[in-house]
Amino acid sequence: MSNLTPATASFIDNLTLSDGTIRDATGRYLTEPRGRWTGQGIVLAPATTAEVAHIVKSCNDAKVGIVPYSGGTGLVGGQLMHDGPVPVVLSLERMNAIRANYPSENVLIAEAGCILADVQTAAADVNRLFPLSLASEGSARIGGLLSTNAGGVNVLRYGNARALCLGLEVVRPDGTIWHGLTRLRKDNTGYDLRDLMIGAEGTLGIITAAALKMVPQPANIGAAFMAVRSPSAALDLLAMAGAHFGDGLSAFELIHRQGVDFMSETGVDVRMPFAEQPNWSVLIDVGLPKGLSPDEALTDLFASAFAEDLVTDGVIAQSDAQRDALWAVRENIPEGNRRIGSISSHDISVPLSHIPDFIAQGMRALAEIGDFRINCFGHLGDGNLHYNVFPTAGKSRADYDHVREAVKTCVHDLCDSFGGSVSAEHGIGRLKVSDLEKYSDPVKLAMMRSVKTALDPVGIMNPGAVLR
Amino acid sequence: MSNLTPATASFIDNLTLSDGTIRDATGRYLTEPRGRWTGQGIVLAPATTAEVAHIVKSCNDAKVGIVPYSGGTGLVGGQLMHDGPVPVVLSLERMNAIRANYPSENVLIAEAGCILADVQTAAADVNRLFPLSLASEGSARIGGLLSTNAGGVNVLRYGNARALCLGLEVVRPDGTIWHGLTRLRKDNTGYDLRDLMIGAEGTLGIITAAALKMVPQPANIGAAFMAVRSPSAALDLLAMAGAHFGDGLSAFELIHRQGVDFMSETGVDVRMPFAEQPNWSVLIDVGLPKGLSPDEALTDLFASAFAEDLVTDGVIAQSDAQRDALWAVRENIPEGNRRIGSISSHDISVPLSHIPDFIAQGMRALAEIGDFRINCFGHLGDGNLHYNVFPTAGKSRADYDHVREAVKTCVHDLCDSFGGSVSAEHGIGRLKVSDLEKYSDPVKLAMMRSVKTALDPVGIMNPGAVLR
Repeated sequence: MSNLTPATASFIDNLTLSDGTIRDATGRYLTEPRGRWTGQGIVLAPATTAEVAHIVKSCNDAKVGIVPYSGGTGLVGGQLMHDGPVPVVLSLERMNAIRANYPSENVLIAEAGCILADVQTAAADVNRLFPLSLASEGSARIGGLLSTNAGGVNVLRYGNARALCLGLEVVRPDGTIWHGLTRLRKDNTGYDLRDLMIGAEGTLGIITAAALKMVPQPANIGAAFMAVRSPSAALDLLAMAGAHFGDGLSAFELIHRQGVDFMSETGVDVRMPFAEQPNWSVLIDVGLPKGLSPDEALTDLFASAFAEDLVTDGVIAQSDAQRDALWAVRENIPEGNRRIGSISSHDISVPLSHIPDFIAQGMRALAEIGDFRINCFGHLGDGNLHYNVFPTAGKSRADYDHVREAVKTCVHDLCDSFGGSVSAEHGIGRLKVSDLEKYSDPVKLAMMRSVKTALDPVGIMNPGAVLR
Repeated sequence: MSNLTPATASFIDNLTLSDGTIRDATGRYLTEPRGRWTGQGIVLAPATTAEVAHIVKSCNDAKVGIVPYSGGTGLVGGQLMHDGPVPVVLSLERMNAIRANYPSENVLIAEAGCILADVQTAAADVNRLFPLSLASEGSARIGGLLSTNAGGVNVLRYGNARALCLGLEVVRPDGTIWHGLTRLRKDNTGYDLRDLMIGAEGTLGIITAAALKMVPQPANIGAAFMAVRSPSAALDLLAMAGAHFGDGLSAFELIHRQGVDFMSETGVDVRMPFAEQPNWSVLIDVGLPKGLSPDEALTDLFASAFAEDLVTDGVIAQSDAQRDALWAVRENIPEGNRRIGSISSHDISVPLSHIPDFIAQGMRALAEIGDFRINCFGHLGDGNLHYNVFPTAGKSRADYDHVREAVKTCVHDLCDSFGGSVSAEHGIGRLKVSDLEKYSDPVKLAMMRSVKTALDPVGIMNPGAVLR
């Protein structure tokens, strides 16, 4: 980072840019969703891949850093650089075309600036599903979603963003363009550079377009809420649901009573599915073949689970509106959390079988630090929990400033002791660089550094993100 | 490659090896399935990861090349080196333990020397499925299957080998060990080095163990043969099957009459499903949720397809034995091919919608070169065809030696013109290095070379494979 020079007005003046490429460096480019840091930079929004290549090559020649900016929804500060030589903030927002759609191949080609919801719509327009789905889908863009290997609620069935991409067009740090927009399902000709670029958080090159996988829309969809006896019972229910539905199981979300109580306490308007709220419940979503009724299939699952004493109550959606209402409970949990204000939030994963122990030991370990309310919820089917720690009633986030670091370290150390990940889906950005250093295998880190140096020798790509 | 030195007896003598590590360099280590080349080398079969690391580090220090040897079933010469300084042939066959099995997580940890069929059995023993399945599963080993990102018949539903791996243990060229055997489904902490190692054909390091994904055994399995009007009708049927079954569709294999005729002609004992053999047929395999009968579901699909004039005849398996009999037709096609003896075989993929054009244009283009019989069959659902060219009746492979190169170039050029891949699932090895150079994007090649140099600076890993 130290070898870089600032982006100056004269550097920008010397670029050959299309009309509209130079943007005002307004707040949206230089802040992040939680408002915790402020970035800096000269904002450029090129209109074509060739223009991206020109800017990137010029930056490389002049040793000017580039911060790739997509939808700006990331939670780990990958999209803004708060110190160091002033970078170019490169926004792909003007490159937002669906270049082509091949429904008979279940493939569409989207530019990096496409908003996720628009890609979902483009798929729906040809009677297909683009299954990536997450809270920020109305503003997150494809380039950032791929660069962070975004997750969301359908990972259990369809995988992360990485699993939904067949090919990429990438501008390398030297300004050359890798034309890798293949629509092939199988291609074993050389190294998997696609998956290396995906999840690299813009530190190895700029994704300018992607060939994305669509899937057939499931013939029958359904959802159910089930009250489970414990996290362990939830895992047994997950295995049972796998045996019943196979990959027809689209989502399996764990919900703790605390999240529901937060919504009640802060006035988030959500209708609860149970008269008496259980401590633990799961939201199960299925997409089933033609000829199989979700209602009957979910009733059958509930009966099997009830017979084995895994569940105590259940509600099966009888209509699309009811399914939406069940999902609204899950989707509003983050809003309740936001209104309470967390002391520390964690996006962790552990091997599935360790989840009950992780939850129990986390409670005990945090109790030794202080009094907290814990809302632990999320993508149980993927072993991915959002394990968030909140003030007790009547206290605020600020009252806990002195223990925040201890809380984070406690949760992350515990996660690591179970062989878990301290960033299951959010990535490293700039916020978790030291976590990566602390918890990663040193040989993996050495390999990452070798790859970074090989592919971005000047070090212009997203300086300070992922690797110091 | 030129900077390497030969592995000598004194080099081997100076290694600290466990009993049994030094093997006789018998034929099986130095030949390949089609008997086309002969390799060379001193064969070592270490018993532990630490011993692998010691050997690799010693080779790196002495600039001795290493040819990783797994099951020896590869078809592109990745497992043997026929010229250059004598290498160490490193066989992982003694590292064949299933280290652990976690059925509640659908994960097992297999050493690289495990034979695929043994991994399938280990999964079945805990009522799970390890879905990688291919002709050589009785001898192919996990390390090689991952290093070549092997495909097979279930890719449509479960993906290639890459999609079935969560984590790796890898010995790097410098002898350090990356302990990356994670069982996590989601982990966004840094670059995707796992997928970089997978498919690298042993040129970046040695995979010594892997955390492999199992899946629930489908509640109901079934299969059908359907006679289709044309390759185009087969594609329409594929889309229809997707709409009916979603990811319940496990395999969708295209079969041409030529393959069936070859089996009859050469006495391969297979019972044909149709009284009159159609020109084109497909084998459809499904794994469906509890509560849905495969017979009824496949009958419903056939009725829909018949109504749209896509299919003319169909046979639905009424028992496991009948399902096996249908699969036997597909599985014996390569044996019929072998007995006839191909002039040139091709493992190509093209974007799905181009398949009918590719087949039609291929026929016409080859007819300009000479008289051939063409057997075009394979994994239609993945856009992956085995497009093999044979002598006319009464002639032999040797009669066509003078046109072999022209045939290969014709098929590969045509494939490339459709944006296809000239190695859909077999990899590059040493056989297709010049194809990779000819048909790949030059920027991709440059990136591959940078990565190779960064991760294997001395160039000891599988010299001459993938990259020259």
